[in-house]
Amino acid sequence: MTGSTALLTDHYELTMVQAALASGAAHRRSVFEVFARRLPDGRRYGVVAGTGRLLDALADFRFGEEQIESLRERRVVDEPTLDWLAGYRFSGTITGYAEGEIQFPGSPVLVVEASFAEGVILETIALSILNHDSAIAAAASRMTGAAGERPCIEMGSRRTHEEAAVAAARAAYIAGFSTTSNLAAGQRYGVPTAGTAAHAFTLLHDTERAAFDAQVASLGSDTTLLVDTYDIPEGVRNAVAAAGTGLGAVRIDSGDLVVGAHAVREQLDALGARDTRIVVTSDLDEFAIATLRAAPVDMYGVGTSLVTGSGAPTAGMVYKLVAHEDEHGELIGVAKKSKDKASVAGRKYAMRRMSPDGVAQAEVIGLGERPSNDGDDRPLMVDLVVDGERVYKDDLDTARDRHAASRAQLPPAATQLSRGEPVIPTIYEDHA
Amino acid sequence: MTGSTALLTDHYELTMVQAALASGAAHRRSVFEVFARRLPDGRRYGVVAGTGRLLDALADFRFGEEQIESLRERRVVDEPTLDWLAGYRFSGTITGYAEGEIQFPGSPVLVVEASFAEGVILETIALSILNHDSAIAAAASRMTGAAGERPCIEMGSRRTHEEAAVAAARAAYIAGFSTTSNLAAGQRYGVPTAGTAAHAFTLLHDTERAAFDAQVASLGSDTTLLVDTYDIPEGVRNAVAAAGTGLGAVRIDSGDLVVGAHAVREQLDALGARDTRIVVTSDLDEFAIATLRAAPVDMYGVGTSLVTGSGAPTAGMVYKLVAHEDEHGELIGVAKKSKDKASVAGRKYAMRRMSPDGVAQAEVIGLGERPSNDGDDRPLMVDLVVDGERVYKDDLDTARDRHAASRAQLPPAATQLSRGEPVIPTIYEDHA
Repeated sequence: MTGSTALLTDHYELTMVQAALASGAAHRRSVFEVFARRLPDGRRYGVVAGTGRLLDALADFRFGEEQIESLRERRVVDEPTLDWLAGYRFSGTITGYAEGEIQFPGSPVLVVEASFAEGVILETIALSILNHDSAIAAAASRMTGAAGERPCIEMGSRRTHEEAAVAAARAAYIAGFSTTSNLAAGQRYGVPTAGTAAHAFTLLHDTERAAFDAQVASLGSDTTLLVDTYDIPEGVRNAVAAAGTGLGAVRIDSGDLVVGAHAVREQLDALGARDTRIVVTSDLDEFAIATLRAAPVDMYGVGTSLVTGSGAPTAGMVYKLVAHEDEHGELIGVAKKSKDKASVAGRKYAMRRMSPDGVAQAEVIGLGERPSNDGDDRPLMVDLVVDGERVYKDDLDTARDRHAASRAQLPPAATQLSRGEPVIPTIYEDHA
Repeated sequence: MTGSTALLTDHYELTMVQAALASGAAHRRSVFEVFARRLPDGRRYGVVAGTGRLLDALADFRFGEEQIESLRERRVVDEPTLDWLAGYRFSGTITGYAEGEIQFPGSPVLVVEASFAEGVILETIALSILNHDSAIAAAASRMTGAAGERPCIEMGSRRTHEEAAVAAARAAYIAGFSTTSNLAAGQRYGVPTAGTAAHAFTLLHDTERAAFDAQVASLGSDTTLLVDTYDIPEGVRNAVAAAGTGLGAVRIDSGDLVVGAHAVREQLDALGARDTRIVVTSDLDEFAIATLRAAPVDMYGVGTSLVTGSGAPTAGMVYKLVAHEDEHGELIGVAKKSKDKASVAGRKYAMRRMSPDGVAQAEVIGLGERPSNDGDDRPLMVDLVVDGERVYKDDLDTARDRHAASRAQLPPAATQLSRGEPVIPTIYEDHA
């Protein structure tokens, strides 16, 4: 995607800038924080994803002529504000959790320090990206956790917005998925892509055998043949007849997958296709994957439930002003007192408290300064942007490795799929 | 968004094209159909949205040098297939439900007639757009139905992917929302945008009164002041003190909104601000809106539940090959027989059966030919693309009017929020 990201923004961010420019408060040094008040119902942990995409979007967050003209035409803000927007370059500092890191309620996953005006207008784009990508990564992590060593294939593009699909493939890869069906995710982010054929390909040919012959002739015997268009046992016979016992894989997309996988495995073995793998698809989620643990399945293809966050399509993160400078240039903590939505004032720092044998014990959040570290603990916040310059440049594989390592440090209850509390508590340390 | 949409596509669409080009079957004239097997659990009707966006995306569905090079590098398909893709222009015909139309299980919302290869590679982009936009529109329609004459404001951008947010604002407008917070939706689609201030603006200033004074000075007394940052009664007093009795509106974003709205209305009236409106926000969905019917609320702001489809984030539409020509050039119906996923073979036509007094009675789907029309019935399918040329060019307001008119024709049970069956049955007429 090319072009400016500046209008992927809520109207009120710009009217607030207008009013604050007029009052003079726009230039107060401010600290904004992104965090989730809670995890989605019953979830044991969350996952931060989207950080890299957000920094890409920040580089394109420019009000060019086209954007300014649109705002002028629609009378969104006044001319002094348009002038200010035309010159907008983020010159502040952003720290936060590195991509792939595990997060908990209250974790300060992003901290933006800038003038009020420079910081406030990033609210919408920051939340859009982090809320979407983190929701997908959190669901994906539960799925790869349930799948263990078996690869998971992301194939949900058709069930979500066409651009959300690309971001979902990226987030799923960070959380341990092996491949995606989405070609744009391959092109933009280097996520490995895979795929073979749909039922339409079989229906197009005069017989299933003719379709399989055509597929094997073109894609080789290592391909995956979809065997459930008509009748599975007949499909498996046709598949092995077409490709030989060196057939790469068969895919089952319907029926009771546990029963189906056992039957297909037996049939393949009896036909001599002992190395032919079994891919299952069909509305899988983390619970279905867990149920299939004991079945002879080699790969899971996951679509709808991945791209919709498996019941939690948004991560519930908010972007809050937590401090600003006063007339003496001192940072003072601020927080709203709205019912059920009160927030904790002041700049936060975070650390994961670890036992001596490397198991996470608590999410420790220091108010105003870094929490004390007994030596085993792991600091969580890294520099992302310093004085307007992007310094965070981790690639996807680094984020993916980080996710795997961070998840492996959680207590074993983390990967239980039953509903429960966050697997470690969040503790605030107030040094004030 | 600029650029090619061609890689917003699943890998297997292209490998199917490769195998079908090799087998010769790629050129068989084929009919693909988009439909939902069922509505989301308990919903009474669905809404078609995204048609216009899909036709925009189709115009940009081109494999240019960059796309071809990406596919070559990643060895997705072979050279003959790359040559074919480089020359790809959709030359077929697409009919379907016009945007904003109500739909039911089995409704053929899109029918693509083209060669197999030309048609099959549109599967992913067509489903991504229609599944997302229709899911949002269906949720939005329930909300505007519950809100009656009171305007609904779309403000969910921060809770969904940044580009999905733009499409969601567009879909919500079709389904009757009045405005959106999303500036890009204003720029690209002309959706009216609105917004005033967040809690951060109040927290930035030394006092709530100073914040309100700043907002009124810059945005005028017709603005909306957010009164729940600290204490609502104090906030309302500050608001009227800052703006006078001509204050446009106050917004309440927390607490019990029914109780809050009554208290604020009484206080505003007592202060003489009888024309000041009350906007409520805070995790509203169609049920909360219905609950607020008897409260003195003037506008609803809806975020999360709108952009996540209020429990149904995807419309569940599928793209199926339903017919292709045989060796004699005759179209023959095809359908898979997979367990629980069997489909109905053959090209479909659709009509809404209407009673003489204009109430919808049934969704009638003709197999192979148009259903009979007793004179009151309403044909549902329009030409979208003819021989590769786009002919459908309805603007958003036309789609919005169509939606309102089509919903108004449904039996009254359609707008009940309780879970139930589709409000009219789908009937197949088989002329074969």
